[in-house]
Amino acid sequence: MTNIGILGNGTVGSGVVELINKNIKKLKERTGEEIRIAKILVKDINKHLGQSNANLLTDKIEELFSEDIDIVVEVMGGIEPTYEYIKRFLSMKKHVVTANKDLIAKHGEELLNIANENQVKLHFEASVGGGIPILKPLSECLAGNEIQNIRGILNGTTNFVLSKMYNENMSYSEALKIAQELGFAEANPESDVMGYDAARKLSILSTISYNKRVEWQDIVAIGITEINETDIKCAKEVNCNIKLLAMSSKEEEGIYAAVRPVLVNKGSQIGKVEDEFNGISIKGDAVGEMFFYGKGAGKFPTASAVFGDIVDIIENKGRKIAIPSKEKAEVYGLWKRKAQWMLRIKGEDRLGIMCSLGELFSKCRFSNEKGINGDEVISFVECESEEILDSIIEKLHSANSVIAVKKFIKLENA
Amino acid sequence: MTNIGILGNGTVGSGVVELINKNIKKLKERTGEEIRIAKILVKDINKHLGQSNANLLTDKIEELFSEDIDIVVEVMGGIEPTYEYIKRFLSMKKHVVTANKDLIAKHGEELLNIANENQVKLHFEASVGGGIPILKPLSECLAGNEIQNIRGILNGTTNFVLSKMYNENMSYSEALKIAQELGFAEANPESDVMGYDAARKLSILSTISYNKRVEWQDIVAIGITEINETDIKCAKEVNCNIKLLAMSSKEEEGIYAAVRPVLVNKGSQIGKVEDEFNGISIKGDAVGEMFFYGKGAGKFPTASAVFGDIVDIIENKGRKIAIPSKEKAEVYGLWKRKAQWMLRIKGEDRLGIMCSLGELFSKCRFSNEKGINGDEVISFVECESEEILDSIIEKLHSANSVIAVKKFIKLENA
Repeated sequence: MTNIGILGNGTVGSGVVELINKNIKKLKERTGEEIRIAKILVKDINKHLGQSNANLLTDKIEELFSEDIDIVVEVMGGIEPTYEYIKRFLSMKKHVVTANKDLIAKHGEELLNIANENQVKLHFEASVGGGIPILKPLSECLAGNEIQNIRGILNGTTNFVLSKMYNENMSYSEALKIAQELGFAEANPESDVMGYDAARKLSILSTISYNKRVEWQDIVAIGITEINETDIKCAKEVNCNIKLLAMSSKEEEGIYAAVRPVLVNKGSQIGKVEDEFNGISIKGDAVGEMFFYGKGAGKFPTASAVFGDIVDIIENKGRKIAIPSKEKAEVYGLWKRKAQWMLRIKGEDRLGIMCSLGELFSKCRFSNEKGINGDEVISFVECESEEILDSIIEKLHSANSVIAVKKFIKLENA
Repeated sequence: MTNIGILGNGTVGSGVVELINKNIKKLKERTGEEIRIAKILVKDINKHLGQSNANLLTDKIEELFSEDIDIVVEVMGGIEPTYEYIKRFLSMKKHVVTANKDLIAKHGEELLNIANENQVKLHFEASVGGGIPILKPLSECLAGNEIQNIRGILNGTTNFVLSKMYNENMSYSEALKIAQELGFAEANPESDVMGYDAARKLSILSTISYNKRVEWQDIVAIGITEINETDIKCAKEVNCNIKLLAMSSKEEEGIYAAVRPVLVNKGSQIGKVEDEFNGISIKGDAVGEMFFYGKGAGKFPTASAVFGDIVDIIENKGRKIAIPSKEKAEVYGLWKRKAQWMLRIKGEDRLGIMCSLGELFSKCRFSNEKGINGDEVISFVECESEEILDSIIEKLHSANSVIAVKKFIKLENA
């Protein structure tokens, strides 16, 4: 008998309970093991009176610590007090499954080390890509690969907003409002729209992929709050979509990692990821480029990933894990490779700016778009690196009366 | 120390050797276990004289049976004598990793039972989707799901041929010739172009997904040999691509399973799978629709999957597996759901056929295309099921002087 304690009884929590109850028989046939939900921690017990499983509910965490539990499922979210709870459970030799990317991005390494010391497992498949199997395939199936790069749409909220803006010509605020009404975005959407959520997930993926600790605070994150209809129009002009990409790659200098809006070809796999879906492209030296797509959030997709982690723990009870503490990665956020860029340059002297651009870049094409007030030069240029691009933009600033510059990478093969 | 014996030293075999040697140190760090290639079975030892690892080679299978081996990697292919070898290795309590879809589709269940009796593992991730992690995610990460359907481009050779025909207006025989020159198609391409290879892979995926034995001989397979430029032209007319899809789904009546050329939307994830790539869409009741994409064959992609299986065995040495013998599935190949179809009807009385079609189908749209000899009616109709469609076509046959009929499902949401 495997006893399961669940921390949290919100949308995902109730999905996990439902999925466990639905699969008890199937799991018994498969593993010979019976599972049982022993206890569920809720915030306020009074809200759940009369519920069918009311006898399992408690709002006292101590009851879970004293219960005979084998696996703890954490779906309450947040860092405190979750972090303290999970540390204590791991020290008590309880396996832990969590969907909490904030917690894993911040304390993942420490918690994994505590788990290892206690010979139990800490699984967090649901923390990246929701229901899409990604962490296990990455760390197990692709173990023979050196991972070269990752490009992902890891945040469904912002992808929903960008899809509405692109496909239905909505403004950012209109699209965000709909996302909030549909429950895709929270009342305070900062973590999503600023790219922090995607940066956290990218740090988890990158740490597994490059075997170095990529801290999420080191990842440059540019969100979608500044995207407007002119950006969308110009992207369409070159047959591109605008996506908030979480990108990282292993480079000689360290790990490149950034979250930023990027122009991707409309016809590419990643350019086809619409609405609240997630898509993750991973390139390994042996396997080449792969792409995983599916629902990155939601009650049952997340519960599906949590349940997969539970099954893994049950099926691998004897397994020894030895993940060494990881060296911190040198992370940088400037694009160091040759790339195409879309530049939007606002200034009084349009002609002067156009002349300068033509001189400064060997390859430069101008858009017919002039921005909303007709005072912009919008161009597509090629440049050896973002550092060089920035220095050229600096020159422009001093030579012409430039007021503002906006830049987007335009990815060739994505 | 884990000793590995390898059966086969062709393209994939040498890829596996290379990948193992490259990862010895990394694997030691990760698992604490050292791996070593103990012996490699080759067809003709004289062909390999002077090779750097010549001391490991043998053309005598008995040398592998008597060697101290923990894991056997089978990449020699074919059913005989491979089947006998693997049976014997499993009975000797050796773990087996194979990339052999023919073998698994034919003898998979028996071999899995022998493996279970001997408490060793039989892994075959590389047998479906090449380097794409699919079997492990499906059976482990998605364990909480009831799989509802599978739609896959599982054969890279035919997808390459169809891509060339679609994108470069080549004929079938021109495209096949190029595929053969590039090594994507074999001299005798029957197994690929007739859809048998895809049917074997679909049987493996479906057996895992629906927990019933789906025998590949029960799967209706229509290959790509009859696809011509008119089919392609008409598909383009409705903004579709033609793909050889391996499709199965769990239905009340049993398991629907078929391999056939299908019209899919050009902009869909599966419609974007080009050239020799594979793409697999899986729908689970909890997780919703997912999509996996990558290289379905080749030296290193296949070796990547094989290596992942090796790591799994090393990391899970103590693990007990209990996969019960599976009931045989009732498999049928007629599409039972409402769908759109593209019909090509050849006959002397074009107008008569058009009138009949208009009468027989409530929804019917005609193409301007009339086939190469101008003697065809090409139309897009909607029908409740393939059985009803066939009975309507039967009526057409008797009422009009119809010479030939060709039909394609046009998938709406793919």
